[in-house]
Amino acid sequence: MNNMLQPGATIGILGGGQLGRMLALAAHKLGLKAHIYCPDPQSPAFEVTPHKTVADYEDEVALKNFAEAVDLVTYEFENVPAATAQKILELNVPLAPGTKALATAQDRLTEKSFIEQAGVPVAPFANVESQGDLEEAVQTIGLPAVLKTRRFGYDGKGQLFLHKPEDVPGAFKALGENPCVLEGFVAFDREISVIIARSANGDITAYDPAENVHQNAILHTSTVPANISDHVAQQAVDAASKIATSLNYVGVMGVEFFVSDDNAQLVVNEIAPRVHNSGHWTEAACVISQFEQHIRAIANWPLGDTSRHSNVVMTNLLGENIAKVTQPVSPGAMVHHYGKYEVRPGRKLGHINQISPKID
Amino acid sequence: MNNMLQPGATIGILGGGQLGRMLALAAHKLGLKAHIYCPDPQSPAFEVTPHKTVADYEDEVALKNFAEAVDLVTYEFENVPAATAQKILELNVPLAPGTKALATAQDRLTEKSFIEQAGVPVAPFANVESQGDLEEAVQTIGLPAVLKTRRFGYDGKGQLFLHKPEDVPGAFKALGENPCVLEGFVAFDREISVIIARSANGDITAYDPAENVHQNAILHTSTVPANISDHVAQQAVDAASKIATSLNYVGVMGVEFFVSDDNAQLVVNEIAPRVHNSGHWTEAACVISQFEQHIRAIANWPLGDTSRHSNVVMTNLLGENIAKVTQPVSPGAMVHHYGKYEVRPGRKLGHINQISPKID
Repeated sequence: MNNMLQPGATIGILGGGQLGRMLALAAHKLGLKAHIYCPDPQSPAFEVTPHKTVADYEDEVALKNFAEAVDLVTYEFENVPAATAQKILELNVPLAPGTKALATAQDRLTEKSFIEQAGVPVAPFANVESQGDLEEAVQTIGLPAVLKTRRFGYDGKGQLFLHKPEDVPGAFKALGENPCVLEGFVAFDREISVIIARSANGDITAYDPAENVHQNAILHTSTVPANISDHVAQQAVDAASKIATSLNYVGVMGVEFFVSDDNAQLVVNEIAPRVHNSGHWTEAACVISQFEQHIRAIANWPLGDTSRHSNVVMTNLLGENIAKVTQPVSPGAMVHHYGKYEVRPGRKLGHINQISPKID
Repeated sequence: MNNMLQPGATIGILGGGQLGRMLALAAHKLGLKAHIYCPDPQSPAFEVTPHKTVADYEDEVALKNFAEAVDLVTYEFENVPAATAQKILELNVPLAPGTKALATAQDRLTEKSFIEQAGVPVAPFANVESQGDLEEAVQTIGLPAVLKTRRFGYDGKGQLFLHKPEDVPGAFKALGENPCVLEGFVAFDREISVIIARSANGDITAYDPAENVHQNAILHTSTVPANISDHVAQQAVDAASKIATSLNYVGVMGVEFFVSDDNAQLVVNEIAPRVHNSGHWTEAACVISQFEQHIRAIANWPLGDTSRHSNVVMTNLLGENIAKVTQPVSPGAMVHHYGKYEVRPGRKLGHINQISPKID
């Protein structure tokens, strides 16, 4: 990881969704090539580069050919199978962020234990591998609480909110009897996130925290600046830095926080070892986007400037809202369409960034 | 041209250099596909899309297949052969900007006559088809003057500066006895350019004029705001609008001006019926770049916001200066590498945009 990739080198990207697509576009701006690996032949990222592999993540022959065609591998999603990551490394191709970040983010129990050990506050949590475990955990943590599968949850999937004692029986079964964690409910009035980048030599840069609003458990808007004190903002950046350093992380990471009602304390909700939806605003309000910053970090280029020239609100375009992209553009607004042409309710198809003059 | 291209449609781009590449990247951001047509198999634009045709511009079979694969054709350079443009139209594929813009910009005599007829000032000029014509033109226009080939000139190529009477004999021969124009020398203290966009329904938007500095006849920097009065800025935008309207132009056009020593008058130097090097700053200082604006105009989408959130200096990276892309990034700076890997002196390989807070 200590060699700098030169323009003309090829970055392999596992995953062909909008994040992989935007990473490829950012790589192109730096004169780097992009090779997308994804099992879905309809992947939108395939439309922005001539280099692709359509194969399952477990296909060892395809992985070998992919590894031979690229100089470095990164990924757009945290559920890259451990065996896939291992295979890349065995083929002597660097993988960034590394396997520790992947393993940590793939399992909520590992993730929360890790964050706690890094000295960063998380909500109280307990391991739940049976209905008995759950009942015991409720005794310790109390209600309300949230039961979450340890693996493969996203956008509110694989979660069950336990309001009162009657919600507890059957809850473990309702989530498919998969290994879970029970998380204590955090009374918060806002959610924020920090997009942070760390380079191989330990340099860290962070974008300003964004304030995130979810609808139906899917991100709706990210607003910057967030309505938080400078002290909380600094705490959030410090916490994200601690996590990145403890993971020996290389690349861009998103860290989501809950901010308590008194706007004085925060706990980490979760980490994403990749570019993050709540960082799409950087594309319009900073000269170097999170996508470019990720490429810079993994290519071992000096990190770019994360300062913000404008205030901004990013709004996701889900499902039919994507029709807004061809409508008149307000002053200060830009649209981004992900090149996904099948419109399904709730599907992330694009976003709008609305900037305005910076007033701090 | 009155139908709006929908996301998923394919834009064909004649020319595979950095302008074609940046147009393709902008198309991707809007969910449009890009198909690059270029005879040079090493074209940098081929690296940012899976759709390409490697063929001569005169290859009728290749043009037919290309036309069938795309929904609309545009170009990144004004020297698209007239027969190529005609062939596209015969195949019933829209071409934007249209053939009038191409024909006008390809020939300096046609261009200057057209601009004059549109009521916009140009330097005095005369047609030169022989050494005798040249001597006659020098009588009328005087010296100093500049002799330019009517076709295929760029970056100072195909030009001869005539300082004194001794420079006149042999000048026509020195430019290969090609048809030329003689242009009266304009005493100016700065060069500016306006990047303007016009849609099929006649809507016009303009970016702020940039002040351009050339070195060895190649653009070195573009600075915005230009050091000109508001009156001159408005005159420049009005002149560019007149030209675009007279051409019934659709797309982005660059118009270069000389501003006279007293900062009160301007004349058009030349027009470029395409995105322009002196508009690369829009990528960093506006939410909608000239590349996206061009795609919006030709796709018949509403034009985007051209307002500027920051001051900016764009510096071209020529030849070995491209090495700067992997160096540390100053606050407010972003680099762009064009994906051209053969470094030759004077070759345009990238640019740096340096933004700073807007102070008008």
